[in-house]
Amino acid sequence: MAHEPPAPVGRRVAEEERRAVGSGASLDDVARLAGVSASTASRALNNHPQVAAATRERVLTAAAGLDYVVSPEASRLAGGASRTRVAVVVPHLSRWFFGRLLEGLEAGLREGGDTAVDVLLFLVGDVAGRRAFFEHLPARRRVDAAVVVGFEVDEAERARLELLGVHIVSAGGPREPFPSVTVDDHRAGRQAVDHLVHLGHRRIGLLASQDPDDRGPDLRTAAYRDALADAGLDVDDELVVRVPFGGPGGADGMGRLLGLRHPPTAVFASADEIAAGAVRTLRRAGLRVGGEISVIGVDDHPVAEMLDLTTVAQPVHEQGVVAGRMVRALLEPGGPVPVASQVLPTHLVLRGTTGPPP
Amino acid sequence: MAHEPPAPVGRRVAEEERRAVGSGASLDDVARLAGVSASTASRALNNHPQVAAATRERVLTAAAGLDYVVSPEASRLAGGASRTRVAVVVPHLSRWFFGRLLEGLEAGLREGGDTAVDVLLFLVGDVAGRRAFFEHLPARRRVDAAVVVGFEVDEAERARLELLGVHIVSAGGPREPFPSVTVDDHRAGRQAVDHLVHLGHRRIGLLASQDPDDRGPDLRTAAYRDALADAGLDVDDELVVRVPFGGPGGADGMGRLLGLRHPPTAVFASADEIAAGAVRTLRRAGLRVGGEISVIGVDDHPVAEMLDLTTVAQPVHEQGVVAGRMVRALLEPGGPVPVASQVLPTHLVLRGTTGPPP
Repeated sequence: MAHEPPAPVGRRVAEEERRAVGSGASLDDVARLAGVSASTASRALNNHPQVAAATRERVLTAAAGLDYVVSPEASRLAGGASRTRVAVVVPHLSRWFFGRLLEGLEAGLREGGDTAVDVLLFLVGDVAGRRAFFEHLPARRRVDAAVVVGFEVDEAERARLELLGVHIVSAGGPREPFPSVTVDDHRAGRQAVDHLVHLGHRRIGLLASQDPDDRGPDLRTAAYRDALADAGLDVDDELVVRVPFGGPGGADGMGRLLGLRHPPTAVFASADEIAAGAVRTLRRAGLRVGGEISVIGVDDHPVAEMLDLTTVAQPVHEQGVVAGRMVRALLEPGGPVPVASQVLPTHLVLRGTTGPPP
Repeated sequence: MAHEPPAPVGRRVAEEERRAVGSGASLDDVARLAGVSASTASRALNNHPQVAAATRERVLTAAAGLDYVVSPEASRLAGGASRTRVAVVVPHLSRWFFGRLLEGLEAGLREGGDTAVDVLLFLVGDVAGRRAFFEHLPARRRVDAAVVVGFEVDEAERARLELLGVHIVSAGGPREPFPSVTVDDHRAGRQAVDHLVHLGHRRIGLLASQDPDDRGPDLRTAAYRDALADAGLDVDDELVVRVPFGGPGGADGMGRLLGLRHPPTAVFASADEIAAGAVRTLRRAGLRVGGEISVIGVDDHPVAEMLDLTTVAQPVHEQGVVAGRMVRALLEPGGPVPVASQVLPTHLVLRGTTGPPP
């Protein structure tokens, strides 16, 4: 410990020693085993740029051998390379939207080369899971921020996190009274249905997700009704079919629409995955999609390009990136930077599944 | 603190007090604010079943108000509801395979109602990211186990985790010398190409992912060559096309195969997402898929059902579930239960995109 001046990092060393967890080994033990001073060991463990790679490796090996682990809290208190803990709360992972948004979120959190972020993943498949997250998380685990993806947070839940000093950001869900990034789902629905109306369609079906959590598709359904009303068209309730989210739901729903006495000439599906199922049914029925019948979705899911599906694109990765940046602004070392909610634009992507009525 | 006997939980309380982090508030402070004994407060914070719901809520509110947080380590040492920290390392999130496997992993980790697991997510998009994970994780964060999804772990990386006492499980990647769950990708490739051979095809193209990380598809490519050799067919190198993973890659690759002087009568795509792109190109070219030309993929991705694509299915969710169970066995309170690696079966799913040569 003698051959380097300990003063500049004295406090950091003390904090780390006091709070180190694991085997009970101290920073001194690690330094001794590595043959360096405690201050050098500390700098190495904190990824300080002035530590030679070989030295760093020696310290890490010693720390590993002794099962010495610096607690995140110690690191933060030490003011060194502190670690931030961000909880990410998602209802699904196998749906493209959520995975893609999470990739953007990761990128946004680590922009500028920041690697001092731990992402804790909470998969809350249903309302009970969500409630459990908000009840148990704060009292049990120290997180600095929570990002909720694609669902609504109620007032009590938000208040609970705020009381605990946990910043909250919403991405890809409804607009919220706290920092959120989303798209205007009503506008997206209007873009889709207005396109069908402009093509001359007068009998337009709707395939909407019946998942009670899908608020986006719900707003898209409202847009369908509004677009028809503005065009002076009546809503025929037999043209409105609610289906389970996904391809099989869309396929079944399209079958029901084809079985009507007066089938629609165009169909608006509230998500591309539902539209994909509808297209499958139409092809099986031998109908020329985009000619004899039109289909439009929402999202610009990769399947849309594969099916040559006309859709309304939303920027999914970008919503994640923006949410990540919001978290970083809220956790700025000098105190939170004000964060304004953002509504990102959607736009019509014309492909081959829409055309004028036959 | 007086109206309840503190003895039975004495050690637990002491540990929690010593190790509580956050605002610096002690368990006594929380108990005082909630109007209960410290032992009751401790039981409430540990979700002990004998604490009345109203009491528990009061304690949690007091803890929240004081920013009192029990550290995971304290909880573990206390022998109460201890928290386990599992790192999950994935190279992608927007690809269905990874999201679906993660959903299974979550289910496996929480089977039997276990909620005392924190999942730390590490998205390591490239080899550099992976290296950084193995270098930095152990010394900086206390995790009990790491699950690597869909990529190979080298010997040095594994040794490093073992030295730190971090259990490691591999899911959906290569077979490893440590607990792993995967499928036999060579066998999956054989099932696909043998099917085409059995249908009578003699000129079979290959669309293989050029992603250097895709070891699975690589084994599937080897299977293509072996299946042709076993059928007494020469491999024509112009029929082997490497493409970027995904639909656009498959679409371009199929275009190249169609541009050959002697195009293939059947195509094996090493993943359904590549096959989907191939089908798009064939439809645009006006070819009847499953009649004039056959296409088969691997995975049974949801897009396969939508496209009526013949494929070789692999159990993705189940690989995640099994990996989660392996982690639980390795972390059994009484010490690790021996875990045998598993290779789950794949099987042919016959749909409409394959048929005899014209």
